[in-house]
Amino acid sequence: MIGRSGIAVKTIERAASASVAELAKYGVATIHEAMGRVGLLAPAMRPIYPGAKICGPAVTIFAHPGDNWMLHVAAELLRPGDVAVLGTSSENADGMFGDLLATSFRSRGALGLVIDAGCRDVADLRAMGFPVWSTAISAKGTVKATLGSVNTPIICAGALVHPGDLIAADDDGVVVVPKARVAEVAAAAGRREAKEALTRERLAAGELGLDIYGMRETLARAGLRYLDDEAALERERNK
Amino acid sequence: MIGRSGIAVKTIERAASASVAELAKYGVATIHEAMGRVGLLAPAMRPIYPGAKICGPAVTIFAHPGDNWMLHVAAELLRPGDVAVLGTSSENADGMFGDLLATSFRSRGALGLVIDAGCRDVADLRAMGFPVWSTAISAKGTVKATLGSVNTPIICAGALVHPGDLIAADDDGVVVVPKARVAEVAAAAGRREAKEALTRERLAAGELGLDIYGMRETLARAGLRYLDDEAALERERNK
Amino acid sequence: MIGRSGIAVKTIERAASASVAELAKYGVATIHEAMGRVGLLAPAMRPIYPGAKICGPAVTIFAHPGDNWMLHVAAELLRPGDVAVLGTSSENADGMFGDLLATSFRSRGALGLVIDAGCRDVADLRAMGFPVWSTAISAKGTVKATLGSVNTPIICAGALVHPGDLIAADDDGVVVVPKARVAEVAAAAGRREAKEALTRERLAAGELGLDIYGMRETLARAGLRYLDDEAALERERNK
Amino acid sequence: MIGRSGIAVKTIERAASASVAELAKYGVATIHEAMGRVGLLAPAMRPIYPGAKICGPAVTIFAHPGDNWMLHVAAELLRPGDVAVLGTSSENADGMFGDLLATSFRSRGALGLVIDAGCRDVADLRAMGFPVWSTAISAKGTVKATLGSVNTPIICAGALVHPGDLIAADDDGVVVVPKARVAEVAAAAGRREAKEALTRERLAAGELGLDIYGMRETLARAGLRYLDDEAALERERNK
Amino acid sequence: MIGRSGIAVKTIERAASASVAELAKYGVATIHEAMGRVGLLAPAMRPIYPGAKICGPAVTIFAHPGDNWMLHVAAELLRPGDVAVLGTSSENADGMFGDLLATSFRSRGALGLVIDAGCRDVADLRAMGFPVWSTAISAKGTVKATLGSVNTPIICAGALVHPGDLIAADDDGVVVVPKARVAEVAAAAGRREAKEALTRERLAAGELGLDIYGMRETLARAGLRYLDDEAALERERNK
Amino acid sequence: MIGRSGIAVKTIERAASASVAELAKYGVATIHEAMGRVGLLAPAMRPIYPGAKICGPAVTIFAHPGDNWMLHVAAELLRPGDVAVLGTSSENADGMFGDLLATSFRSRGALGLVIDAGCRDVADLRAMGFPVWSTAISAKGTVKATLGSVNTPIICAGALVHPGDLIAADDDGVVVVPKARVAEVAAAAGRREAKEALTRERLAAGELGLDIYGMRETLARAGLRYLDDEAALERERNK
Repeated sequence: MIGRSGIAVKTIERAASASVAELAKYGVATIHEAMGRVGLLAPAMRPIYPGAKICGPAVTIFAHPGDNWMLHVAAELLRPGDVAVLGTSSENADGMFGDLLATSFRSRGALGLVIDAGCRDVADLRAMGFPVWSTAISAKGTVKATLGSVNTPIICAGALVHPGDLIAADDDGVVVVPKARVAEVAAAAGRREAKEALTRERLAAGELGLDIYGMRETLARAGLRYLDDEAALERERNK
Repeated sequence: MIGRSGIAVKTIERAASASVAELAKYGVATIHEAMGRVGLLAPAMRPIYPGAKICGPAVTIFAHPGDNWMLHVAAELLRPGDVAVLGTSSENADGMFGDLLATSFRSRGALGLVIDAGCRDVADLRAMGFPVWSTAISAKGTVKATLGSVNTPIICAGALVHPGDLIAADDDGVVVVPKARVAEVAAAAGRREAKEALTRERLAAGELGLDIYGMRETLARAGLRYLDDEAALERERNK
Repeated sequence: MIGRSGIAVKTIERAASASVAELAKYGVATIHEAMGRVGLLAPAMRPIYPGAKICGPAVTIFAHPGDNWMLHVAAELLRPGDVAVLGTSSENADGMFGDLLATSFRSRGALGLVIDAGCRDVADLRAMGFPVWSTAISAKGTVKATLGSVNTPIICAGALVHPGDLIAADDDGVVVVPKARVAEVAAAAGRREAKEALTRERLAAGELGLDIYGMRETLARAGLRYLDDEAALERERNK
Repeated sequence: MIGRSGIAVKTIERAASASVAELAKYGVATIHEAMGRVGLLAPAMRPIYPGAKICGPAVTIFAHPGDNWMLHVAAELLRPGDVAVLGTSSENADGMFGDLLATSFRSRGALGLVIDAGCRDVADLRAMGFPVWSTAISAKGTVKATLGSVNTPIICAGALVHPGDLIAADDDGVVVVPKARVAEVAAAAGRREAKEALTRERLAAGELGLDIYGMRETLARAGLRYLDDEAALERERNK
Repeated sequence: MIGRSGIAVKTIERAASASVAELAKYGVATIHEAMGRVGLLAPAMRPIYPGAKICGPAVTIFAHPGDNWMLHVAAELLRPGDVAVLGTSSENADGMFGDLLATSFRSRGALGLVIDAGCRDVADLRAMGFPVWSTAISAKGTVKATLGSVNTPIICAGALVHPGDLIAADDDGVVVVPKARVAEVAAAAGRREAKEALTRERLAAGELGLDIYGMRETLARAGLRYLDDEAALERERNK
Repeated sequence: MIGRSGIAVKTIERAASASVAELAKYGVATIHEAMGRVGLLAPAMRPIYPGAKICGPAVTIFAHPGDNWMLHVAAELLRPGDVAVLGTSSENADGMFGDLLATSFRSRGALGLVIDAGCRDVADLRAMGFPVWSTAISAKGTVKATLGSVNTPIICAGALVHPGDLIAADDDGVVVVPKARVAEVAAAAGRREAKEALTRERLAAGELGLDIYGMRETLARAGLRYLDDEAALERERNK
């Protein structure tokens, strides 16, 4: 039913807000690692301006190329703190979303939009501080003619998103955390950050990852050979 | 004769300056809509720095990959307020334009450049405040060996541009308005903005596009069904 | 042996520091021209934030898609003023480099990284002022499982880089200067800049490149014809 | 758990073989339409030689860029009539599959492979008649170092595939049918083909789709205007 | 008015059939050269099977992404010998055209289709011998909801096409010849082929292009230097 | 000096013909593996028709976008059995090579061409049986205006090629073998093929790679867990 059209689900189960607040402390890269390196959207998904960072439950939207009708249906179903996430039935760069819809989404309390298509009015959106992650920027207008769905599972930029899953987005991209895993992932992210803080200090002090992570032996076992200089490399080449 | 080489037209008919000034008030997305959703250049055409916005008649340039000779021919034919627009005979990212040509173009009064190829010296151009919309940034130098044309009709990033047509460019991209339509489009853009200002207020106040645009009935007629919750969706899936 | 795995060369011959300092004055476009228009990396190589500019000898890294093991090996071999340069055995956008490695590289004195793959933690890197030129931004984590090499010749974004060659990078992209040519190229870049400064003045004063470069005759010889106006073009079309 | 590593599920529920045989009669485009226009893999997924057509339950494989270890794990779990389907954790074109694995897969009775990565030995595969749909052809070898999974849900070329779902692939691309829907979709595909056969006859006899589908009225209502000739168009342009 | 929607022009002026027959003798590369190297569609436009070659006047179609309504309108306006040519308002790979429309187009006498979008049922089209040049192959279905136009000027794969212009397509791609130039271009193509036949004979007999085209002197004047062997190159490098 | 223009080296040292003959027995994937997984050109390099396979020493050509002058210079320096290999100073798809140059190259005894640019007259080349590996097919004509080089080291599709290096090309792509390594690589390829022949037999007989390569233990050590069925996976998910 991924990609099924014609349905809008009114009430969805969202990730618990305490967990959302907890997870919101961490960056996308950390959350992705804490998940076990899953859940990342494709790197074509880029913020329309630098420095934005949001975290909230997904209201999912499924739409067709060049048709932004379902974004209006979604507006009504957004709650404060939500992140709208839109997947399409095929690749398309048209500017499905602009400052009017952003005004509507903001008045509903939405934090931002993740859209596997184009976005427009980006100067206005930057001025409003309404962040969008999109795969294109395009002024190309869209029609309102064909039904998609709201709050059904979608695929967005290669990732599966269920309504209510947690979306975290920053300058590195976008990651989705299944709602059932939010607390667990937040805890793992916290542990990771604590550990990384220590590592960062040691690295800043000049220690090497080779020593901190104990890589010298595994590298040697894998066969890494150190040559003294380029002359040694040249000799090897001519052997 | 699109793509014909070896001709430079000295005097072109430009869009009337009053109309240009009128149109310059509006953004690319608004103008594109006011045109009836035509005239947009492909979204690969991006500004080299954010925040630039220009509007003026086109001096058109046709060039070959890796050859920027005709930009020098164009310099002489630029008048204050013009926008240079360059199309190529095949796709190429070489840096055809840099700070020297920008200095020359500026001294002629040109507002900026739209180029279906690469641009270089972008830090200098940003410092000068000379905006360029290009499909690539590349330091790759070009030769001066093969004739193209200046002020003949060109295709740039998928759009047809006649010399003297109006070019509007901002963070959303670039749109071309045929010179004969400038006044009409400016008027339509004005009407659109006035209408959107009202809609924006209503949306900001919490009204929904569904109601403002009267979409509920058409959505229902198209077959949109609202389900109460995900359990209802699950039941449907198993039916 | 380009692409050979399992070797790390400890000591490399670097471009002389006086020459590096001299070359560091110039931009990538100027250096590329001074080289005779060679040595440029492909334009897909972009800085993760605008305004960065570095110049230093290359410590080269060869790695496999999705595997950042060799970046740790490289850290130990970096010296103050170096630029790390990474080529891969096949195209891949995974985020091989983030703030921890940047902390390590900085503590070794490295100026920045040029990577034919993805980068993550870009907000942190911007905050640290540690510049990276990459072909992608991606939070996707990588493994440490397969050997590559450090300080052997590599191909990065289509350019051949030997360890110790000089790397210059700015908003226009990245260029590599063979270490043996650094002094010569710096001199040529200086001559070019001096000449361009004069040209820039003349252009700013309204002189045309057509006259400064003496192009009018060559253009005429190549067959460029000036038509008075669009009506003349129309007549030609109908002949 | 999409993208979870380290698990291989031995026994999966496959679509019923009678339904598979029924569905195998139809092409990918017909099945995609019968599904309600869902389930299609992205068009980057192309057959390595023309004319191949397969249909069978999916054994799913999740792998990392440049690492084909899990294809060997999958070989053991393939049953006659199966189609192997591989998704990766990030985009990569390396040649993960060649004639040796094809020999192994064939000896297990597999019909073919759908791989969101590269394939090699394509001349041998064509000679063997072992079809592969891939996003690239590349001789680039891969390692066996990092665990993925077999028979867990995956995303392949933008489509969600559960183990045992039905995969149909031909010259038009690849579609996935959830196992629970196979019978229903086969029936719908049959009805569609029957109807299309009649339409095809009428179209071949010179009737127009405009009349067969009754489009004239809806087109007129949407505002389509017929002009007699290009002169009429020209008059309109100048109005 | 490029890209204007809602108009279908019933009668168009077509290139004269004698000239069409004359031009049909030549390949796309020859015609493109005979045109003065203009009129070529972008190389992304590829035939769905090798070996097809058509030449005929264009019936032009303008359509929106994911919407194939106007192809049905076009069917009625096709005459024997025509080539349908479709441009879109934005990039889209959906399969707008399949075997049913091909059956209809064929019954109208059309020779083939050039479409700046996707095509499906390609095995059937190959079997029918109905050639299509497209930018994608995709089974993705399309809707019939939004008006475009038929027989108005369009841009297709970067080339301007007026209704009635001549379209020639073969394994090298697609070229458009303005109807007013067909006779002239056919004559030029004939002269070119005659000349090339002589050149081909001389080249086959072992003469060099350097001598036939008299390039030795211009190469020398441009500065080409012949070195005897790689040792000489090495000496130069170390100078 | 990679990318240096204006030099043609007349006599180059070619790989020994006995070794070439030996290596010619093997496919590109086998040679790439025998090399230690290096030397492969990027997968964008594709044959213009299926089934071609060549192997011979490289005559290297460096050219600029849209300029095929140096192919004529190269023709004179080709010897029987050679493979011409062309790299460009920047990405470009123009059709630099067609049937006339192929006729000339064939009369010189060349086996084929590898070109990091476009090719045209592909139907003629297929009919002649003159194979080309290119990154594009395009009828776009090129000029003869700017010097490149012949028989200097080049980078082609991301691989370093010295004149005289061995080029092997087939349906899987193109690999370059440094001339000094040809004998060694041929021997390694032979050993690999012998070993693979045995493995192929065992796989065809139903043995698994897991057992032949002894992977079961390393997989277990890496943590691979087998679950009995999807219910077990579901239980795990909910733990």
